[in-house]
Amino acid sequence: MRKRALAYLQSGGPTSVINTSLYGVIKEAIKHPEAISGIYGALYGVSGLINDNLIDLRAEDKEVIELLKQTPGAALGTVRYQLPQNHNHPDYEKIIATLKKHDIGYLLINGGNDSMDTCHKLSVFFEHNNVDCAVIGVPKTIDNDLFFTDHCLGYPSAAKYVIQTLQDIQIDNNSYYKGKVVIVEVMGRNAGWLTASAALLPKEFKADAIYLPEDKFDLEAFCAHTKSVYDKKKTAFIVISEGVQAFLPGKNISVDAFNHQQLGGVANMLGEELKDRFGFGVRPIEFSLMQRSNPLNISATDSYEAIKVSAKAVKAVIAGKNNAMVVIKRKSDVPYKATFTLKHLGKIANAEKKIPAELVADIHGEGELMKRYLAPLIEKEVKIKYVNGHSAYAKLKKVHVE
Amino acid sequence: MRKRALAYLQSGGPTSVINTSLYGVIKEAIKHPEAISGIYGALYGVSGLINDNLIDLRAEDKEVIELLKQTPGAALGTVRYQLPQNHNHPDYEKIIATLKKHDIGYLLINGGNDSMDTCHKLSVFFEHNNVDCAVIGVPKTIDNDLFFTDHCLGYPSAAKYVIQTLQDIQIDNNSYYKGKVVIVEVMGRNAGWLTASAALLPKEFKADAIYLPEDKFDLEAFCAHTKSVYDKKKTAFIVISEGVQAFLPGKNISVDAFNHQQLGGVANMLGEELKDRFGFGVRPIEFSLMQRSNPLNISATDSYEAIKVSAKAVKAVIAGKNNAMVVIKRKSDVPYKATFTLKHLGKIANAEKKIPAELVADIHGEGELMKRYLAPLIEKEVKIKYVNGHSAYAKLKKVHVE
Repeated sequence: MRKRALAYLQSGGPTSVINTSLYGVIKEAIKHPEAISGIYGALYGVSGLINDNLIDLRAEDKEVIELLKQTPGAALGTVRYQLPQNHNHPDYEKIIATLKKHDIGYLLINGGNDSMDTCHKLSVFFEHNNVDCAVIGVPKTIDNDLFFTDHCLGYPSAAKYVIQTLQDIQIDNNSYYKGKVVIVEVMGRNAGWLTASAALLPKEFKADAIYLPEDKFDLEAFCAHTKSVYDKKKTAFIVISEGVQAFLPGKNISVDAFNHQQLGGVANMLGEELKDRFGFGVRPIEFSLMQRSNPLNISATDSYEAIKVSAKAVKAVIAGKNNAMVVIKRKSDVPYKATFTLKHLGKIANAEKKIPAELVADIHGEGELMKRYLAPLIEKEVKIKYVNGHSAYAKLKKVHVE
Repeated sequence: MRKRALAYLQSGGPTSVINTSLYGVIKEAIKHPEAISGIYGALYGVSGLINDNLIDLRAEDKEVIELLKQTPGAALGTVRYQLPQNHNHPDYEKIIATLKKHDIGYLLINGGNDSMDTCHKLSVFFEHNNVDCAVIGVPKTIDNDLFFTDHCLGYPSAAKYVIQTLQDIQIDNNSYYKGKVVIVEVMGRNAGWLTASAALLPKEFKADAIYLPEDKFDLEAFCAHTKSVYDKKKTAFIVISEGVQAFLPGKNISVDAFNHQQLGGVANMLGEELKDRFGFGVRPIEFSLMQRSNPLNISATDSYEAIKVSAKAVKAVIAGKNNAMVVIKRKSDVPYKATFTLKHLGKIANAEKKIPAELVADIHGEGELMKRYLAPLIEKEVKIKYVNGHSAYAKLKKVHVE
C-alpha cells in the first residue's frame, strides 16, 4: 500500500470536545506511519482545502496536543460554507488541486448535518471523477440531531452544562421569597435534544415548563400557563429552545449561508411579552456560547468517546472505507456501554433527527425515558489543568504546509 | 458571662460563597458552647427577624453543612428590604420581640452595602433602646464595592467565572474567519470591579474595549470605536458593565425597593444599535445569574476567607464587639497574605467604593495594577462533590425554632 497524507477539518459550530476529536485523530494517525505520510489540518473547514491552507499537525508540541482536550472553539478554525451543487464550480477543481499537491488520500470531516452533506458531496464527487481520496465523517453537534448514531459528540458536555447551570440559577432564584419568571433559552434549531436535558433536573428544581421545537408553540397558551404558575408560586422557571422563535409572529428573521434562520433572543421576546401583559418581574437568560464552550462541564464519557470515534475514523479511512460516518451504538444503559461502527453518509447528510413523539411526551412528564437516555452520558467529569486561575488552552503553532 | 443565642441572616444578592460564610459561622459557633446557647438562621433576611421565622442550624446534618460550601443561592433565603428610618415603625418592635423570645444576644448580618446599612441601623437602634444584642456585619457582594476591606467575599469567585467564561467565548468566537461583534454584559451597578476582571485575560484574548460605570459612556464614541475595530479585525470583543445603562438615552428604567435602578439588557440594546447602524452580526451575551451562582468557579481563596471571616465575626460578637464589619486587610500580594479585623459600620454603610481613577486608567491600558490586585484572589480551585453529573447541593431541613 502506498503511503498517503491525511487531512482533517472542523466544520460548523464548535463544541466543548470538538478539539478532543482532533486530539484523537492526531494520536491515532501517528500510530500508522506505514499508511499515513502526513497529518494535516485544513484551516477554517472546507475553505482550507479550497484555498490550500493546511498546517502540519505533527509539528505541534506534545503538551499543546494534550491541552486540545480542554480547549473550546475550533482549534483549526471552522466555517459555515456549503459546497455548491454544481460540480463545475471552481471550488471542486481547487480542492482536487490541494489533494494532489499534498498527496492527500484520506479526508476526515468533523461536523454536524451540514458538514456531513459536505462530506457526502465530496465522496460522491471524488468517486465520479476518479479522485483517489476516501472521506469519513466524524459526528459533532450539540444539537444531537444526526440519524443512526445514539448521540453526537459534544451533546453530552453541552447537556451537562445545561443541567448544572439550570440547577445553579434555580437555586439562586429560589433564594427570594418572591422570585421572578426566569426564562432560559437553550440552543437547538429544529431539534430540542439539548433543551430536553432539563428533564434531568433534581425534582425540587423541575422546570415549570419545557418548550421544544418539536412542540407546536402557542403564545397565548404560553402566557396563560406562565400566569397560572406565577399566581400560585410567585415565581416560574421556564426552559425554552431557541427554535421556538419560528412560531412567533411578526419577527424579522435573517438567514445564514445554509438558509437556516438565525435564531436567538426568544427568551427576551417572551419576557417582554409577559412584562407587558402582566407586569411580572422577568429574567430572560440565554446560555449562548457558554453551553458549547465550557471546559469545566466536559463529560468524561463525551471526551472518551470523542477519542474512540476518531480512532475508528482513522482506522476506517486507511482501510479504504469511504462515504461513511462513524456512529455510536449503545449496547447498554447501566452500566453504559457502546461500540463504534460505520454508516453510509447518503442516509445521514441533511437529515435532522428530531425527538420522537413518545420521548417528547416523557420530557413533558416524568422524564424517565430521557433520564435513561442522557444520564449515562453526563455522569463523569474530566480533570482540568489550570493556569492563572483559568483553564489552560492549546495554542497551536500552525506550521503551514508548503 | 450569660449564654445567649446567635442569629445569622443572609441579605441582598447571593454569591457563590454566600453559604460558605454560613458554614463558617456554624463551624465556629459550635466551638463556643460556653457563650452560645443556640445557633439560629433567620429566613429571608431581616424579615425572618421581623416575622419570627427562625430555624435551628444545629439540627442540620453534618454532611449537609459540608455541602453549603458548594451550594449557590442563599440557603436561608434572602431579601431586598430596607428597614424604615423611623424607629417607631412596627418592624423594630417586632424584631425586639423576636430577640427577647429567643434570647438572642448576637446577631450576624451577611450582605453588601444595603445590608450593612440594616446592620448599622439595628446596632444604633439597639444601643439607644438598651436592647442587649451585639451586631456584626459579614461582607458579601460580587460588586466588591464596600469600603475599608481589600475585597468583598464572593467577588473573587465571580471574577474567576468572568475571566474563565470570557476566555471560553473568545476562543469560540475566534473559530470563525469572520466573527461577530460580541458584547458581554457583566453585573455591577455603580462600580465596575467585576467587569474590570476582563483586564486579567491572556493577551491574545484581550478585550477590544472595557466599559465601566466609572467611565462616562458615550454612545457615539462606542459606535465609532466598535466600527473601527470591526473594520480592521472583522470581529470585536467588548466587555461592558450593566451600570453603563444609566448613560443610555430614552430608556424607561424601573427601580427596586432601595430606589436603585433595575438594570440588565444593556448588551442587547447596544447590539441592536450596532445592527441598525452598520448591519454587523452581533452576539450580545449576559452573564446573568451564572456569574454569581456557579460552584465550578469558586475561588479557593474566596472560600477559605469566607470561613475565616465568619470565624472572626463569631469570636468578635461573643467578645462584645458591636456595630462593626469584618474587613480583609491585605498584607502581601505574592505570596498572597491577609488578616481579618473589624471596622466601625458607621463609615461603611451605604457608601460605595468605586474603582479609583488610577486603576480605571490601568484597566483600559496594560492592566498590570488590576492583575496585581485580582490575580492572587482567583488563583486556586475547590474540589467539588458531584452527584448524577451535577454538583451536589445542601438541602437544609429547616427545623423551625418555636
